[in-house]
Amino acid sequence: MIYLDTSATTSMYPEILYIIKQYSVDDYYNPSALYTKALNVAKDIKVAKRKILDILHGNGNIIFTASGTESDNMAMFGSKKFKNCKVLVSSVEHSAIYACAKKLEASGIQVEFVACDAYGIVDIDDFKAKMSSNVALVSIMHACNETGGVNDIEQLVKIAKSVSPKVVFHSDGVQAVGKMPINLSKLGVDLYTFSAHKFHGMKGVGGLFVKKGVNINPIILGGGQENGLRSATENVSGIISTAVALEKTCKLLDIEKNKKIIQFIADNLATFIPDLIVNTNFECSLSNILSFALKNTRGEVLVHMLEDKGIIIGTGSACSSSKAHSRIPTALGIQREYFDGMIRISIDNCTTFEQAEIFVKEFKSCYEYLSSVIFNKCY
Amino acid sequence: MIYLDTSATTSMYPEILYIIKQYSVDDYYNPSALYTKALNVAKDIKVAKRKILDILHGNGNIIFTASGTESDNMAMFGSKKFKNCKVLVSSVEHSAIYACAKKLEASGIQVEFVACDAYGIVDIDDFKAKMSSNVALVSIMHACNETGGVNDIEQLVKIAKSVSPKVVFHSDGVQAVGKMPINLSKLGVDLYTFSAHKFHGMKGVGGLFVKKGVNINPIILGGGQENGLRSATENVSGIISTAVALEKTCKLLDIEKNKKIIQFIADNLATFIPDLIVNTNFECSLSNILSFALKNTRGEVLVHMLEDKGIIIGTGSACSSSKAHSRIPTALGIQREYFDGMIRISIDNCTTFEQAEIFVKEFKSCYEYLSSVIFNKCY
Repeated sequence: MIYLDTSATTSMYPEILYIIKQYSVDDYYNPSALYTKALNVAKDIKVAKRKILDILHGNGNIIFTASGTESDNMAMFGSKKFKNCKVLVSSVEHSAIYACAKKLEASGIQVEFVACDAYGIVDIDDFKAKMSSNVALVSIMHACNETGGVNDIEQLVKIAKSVSPKVVFHSDGVQAVGKMPINLSKLGVDLYTFSAHKFHGMKGVGGLFVKKGVNINPIILGGGQENGLRSATENVSGIISTAVALEKTCKLLDIEKNKKIIQFIADNLATFIPDLIVNTNFECSLSNILSFALKNTRGEVLVHMLEDKGIIIGTGSACSSSKAHSRIPTALGIQREYFDGMIRISIDNCTTFEQAEIFVKEFKSCYEYLSSVIFNKCY
Repeated sequence: MIYLDTSATTSMYPEILYIIKQYSVDDYYNPSALYTKALNVAKDIKVAKRKILDILHGNGNIIFTASGTESDNMAMFGSKKFKNCKVLVSSVEHSAIYACAKKLEASGIQVEFVACDAYGIVDIDDFKAKMSSNVALVSIMHACNETGGVNDIEQLVKIAKSVSPKVVFHSDGVQAVGKMPINLSKLGVDLYTFSAHKFHGMKGVGGLFVKKGVNINPIILGGGQENGLRSATENVSGIISTAVALEKTCKLLDIEKNKKIIQFIADNLATFIPDLIVNTNFECSLSNILSFALKNTRGEVLVHMLEDKGIIIGTGSACSSSKAHSRIPTALGIQREYFDGMIRISIDNCTTFEQAEIFVKEFKSCYEYLSSVIFNKCY
């Protein structure tokens, strides 16, 4: 099976099973308990946090959550707001941010959506125009989950802080972490989201980096775990395995190889798809995503045809694929006749050139068959 | 090692490792994706939900969350409120409910705390007195995590619904599920919380039962998973293993054996502890918890002494053990000189009579040593 949907989720590294055995079957203690065996587990959690902070070059704390979505919700609802403040988010944010923005808006907070280009990258001029001294919160994704477009977060943070020194700057790094080198200190973000299952960790584990000195309120209350910032018995195996998965993924990351594979696919698709639109900008995108759109074609049909040939691809993000909505293609400026034909190919360190060749061959076969059917039926 | 702190957490059944391998390493697909392999995972999640509903005799839906705490937060914040409404909770609720109640109170909603007896069981007369037609939400735990006391939820629901037909009745069943037979339809609750790691499932997985026809709002927004009620990529292994763990735990549950072990321990402790206070009522408590308090003794010291002898016990709930607070002992009417000496023994199907005998012997030895030190030092 050729899996080209790593932006939706990834396979867990098999060695994580040993970590789960250790912390769930053997040393399964509740880290909040008082006995030494439990305290040792609590210490192991701290070590894992430290390791993640080191890998991401973050000076601050990590709050473990259950998902990128929960981390995003915490950033949006838990960060400080003030009277007559404004919130800025990009127009192609993942629905985890978008839905929170709409709720903030419904509660009376002014929310503005910053325009993006066709590659999902924030329009700096529009950002500058919308940035004002009453902006309390900015949330701009690091890399776009639909197109792979990477925002210049460092520059955006500088602009934001210069205009509104009190602003809290959050970036959703769910697609970026493990796919490109991350230096949170250099980026200058106050809050940063990641999700373990996007880099071969467990599903059900996310994290929110909180820069030293930044205050945030909890959104889940209770026993006071995570220094009172996120209550619930800690998901010990999930937390500790996240550090292991991140370390391994970053070590295995081969950006040049990814780029060559993605470029190879894009070049070949262009040879037989006349109206192809490519939404990935190879100059400033993640190395592992290729987003493209086909005219008057239902991407879903291609997904199923390719699955029959043992190839898994995605249509836009998995989180929105089941809903017929047009927010993202509209924000990307895609024409209506391409809406249903959006395809996302996403690879990782497991993907080979041979797989890419097979994909191109089979995709061509499916596409040509589909085109002939459409042509014959005067669709 | 003799583990007598099963109310804090339990060891995960080793066979769950195979489920994790299946859904995280092999069939690791994102259930929101469109391809058949992903749809099959989504189907398996539905089957797991159905199984849990069957075991708990629930007519409604289960929303999977990341913890009992999150489920409690969802019940408290997601259930409908109306103008000038009131919320009732018991005075010994777990901090996951208590903290939410305090936040609701701070937001302007009237919250009242229903008194309990020395065993953590709600005072029906006080409940009747506080129940009024403007009560929008009641949250009363099924079994008390500190004492094991089981509330007559069925009766409380009937009283509540007769006084305020619109009321939403939530019960925190985190300690009850897997420790006693549960029939949600008979209880009549609208919302009911459970947590997988309390019955040998994975940490980081909780659930909220929602009775058919009951409306609740999400507290975590995003991609619209769980029918829009709890967004985030589903924790597939966590969800599916929860059904397996629950089924096995319910099959292995031996209430009579538990009762005998707990009674044996209580009877023996009474023979050498003159001022012993027992907070567990054997007539209406879970079969697996014994809560007691020692006069002028630091339970924490006994925890460490016993750990050196290979025995793990708890002091009150793990979630509150690290904080010097007196909410629970005060609510239970315990005298000040017993506050630091609260001990919780909690067992499960893995506990044997032989272990109970060893515990009693070693506890006696530790207690007598400690007493002699205290006596000699004129503490």
